Amino acid sequence: MERHHFQQELGSLKERLLAMGGLAEERVRTALQGLVERDPDLIDEVLGGDMPLNELHIEIDDLCLKLLALHSPMAADLRAIMAAIKINSDLERVGDMAVNIAEAARRYASHPPVKKLIDIPRMGDIAQAMLRDALDSYVKGDVALAQQVLNEDDQLDALKTQIFRELLTFMLSDPTTIEPSLDLLLVSRHLERIGDHATNVAEDVIFMVSARDVRHHAPEGDR
Amino acid sequence: MERHHFQQELGSLKERLLAMGGLAEERVRTALQGLVERDPDLIDEVLGGDMPLNELHIEIDDLCLKLLALHSPMAADLRAIMAAIKINSDLERVGDMAVNIAEAARRYASHPPVKKLIDIPRMGDIAQAMLRDALDSYVKGDVALAQQVLNEDDQLDALKTQIFRELLTFMLSDPTTIEPSLDLLLVSRHLERIGDHATNVAEDVIFMVSARDVRHHAPEGDR
Repeated sequence: MERHHFQQELGSLKERLLAMGGLAEERVRTALQGLVERDPDLIDEVLGGDMPLNELHIEIDDLCLKLLALHSPMAADLRAIMAAIKINSDLERVGDMAVNIAEAARRYASHPPVKKLIDIPRMGDIAQAMLRDALDSYVKGDVALAQQVLNEDDQLDALKTQIFRELLTFMLSDPTTIEPSLDLLLVSRHLERIGDHATNVAEDVIFMVSARDVRHHAPEGDR
Repeated sequence: MERHHFQQELGSLKERLLAMGGLAEERVRTALQGLVERDPDLIDEVLGGDMPLNELHIEIDDLCLKLLALHSPMAADLRAIMAAIKINSDLERVGDMAVNIAEAARRYASHPPVKKLIDIPRMGDIAQAMLRDALDSYVKGDVALAQQVLNEDDQLDALKTQIFRELLTFMLSDPTTIEPSLDLLLVSRHLERIGDHATNVAEDVIFMVSARDVRHHAPEGDR
């Protein structure tokens, strides 16, 4: 009975983490759409407040504390809650990235557009898919899926480098593009960081499931 | 006796976190020195590997798991361990920032210097002091010190904005400064993020000591 109750609470913790991931992802998507469409309403929507995300963050932390205090879980259950504590922090920071992207989008919209934005939305799609997969792998305890997330990081890195080179060319040939290009560069870095957070989640999942620590065993990319 | 044993282990956990903070800070200092002095040996030292830091990271996570599993701590003790789990992640990412700064320093050294670096080392000093104070506030359970860390973040933000404006002026007037200026801009962002990590630690401390959640109640800066 006690154990059954714990599993129920753990299930509801996972459900809250998924909700938080969905919310963070939606905010990133809105910020990127605001950037691409130069839409001040979308940008303001993201800048207007991340209250629901912040409330979930506190709620999830409290749920973790409660599960630890009431059930004194062991082994895999304990590792699942430890992972949840970390994933919660990662998701909160993904929400921060949405705000950062919206701030860059607002500045970007105050200049003539530098170029048609194609690679940045692609980076956004990849980063968001990574985040979704990482959270799925947590909920399902799916190590193979978590491993796949780790592999996808290379694509983000390649796009980031490509975006950098292209923007540098613009900046060198026309100084009026410098300021808006800087904002696009920042956005590409923010998206890269969302990928980093997804990677963190995936590593936590692998540790949780296999009790094997994959962290720090992969070669470091140029972040 | 049991409780005494727990307090001993908690003490050793805190001691390991301080060691990790010291190591992370040292790597940031070395990377910045490598940037300012254009010294490839210092840069390579940071890029060469963060093995000790990574080992400490895993060791601290294990220590937290062990303390939770063996002692089923409650209330303030439980919150102290939950804070340690999060602080451990933050310190690891400070170590990542040292690597990022070293990568930028390596690229920067391949161009003629843009300017004498004064504000960036100042940002570094502030960010590192914030991190030290935040860790001290954790070990001592000193809420006033944690609050002070939160207040210091404004200084970092002001310096970041100042650096941005100055570098933008260089880039607009002389295209040959664009590429190296971009690396300096990145470094200022990495230092800002170290300040963010210190802020996270300070918020965890305030939550741990007062069980009051200060997170998300402060106005967001332009990050």
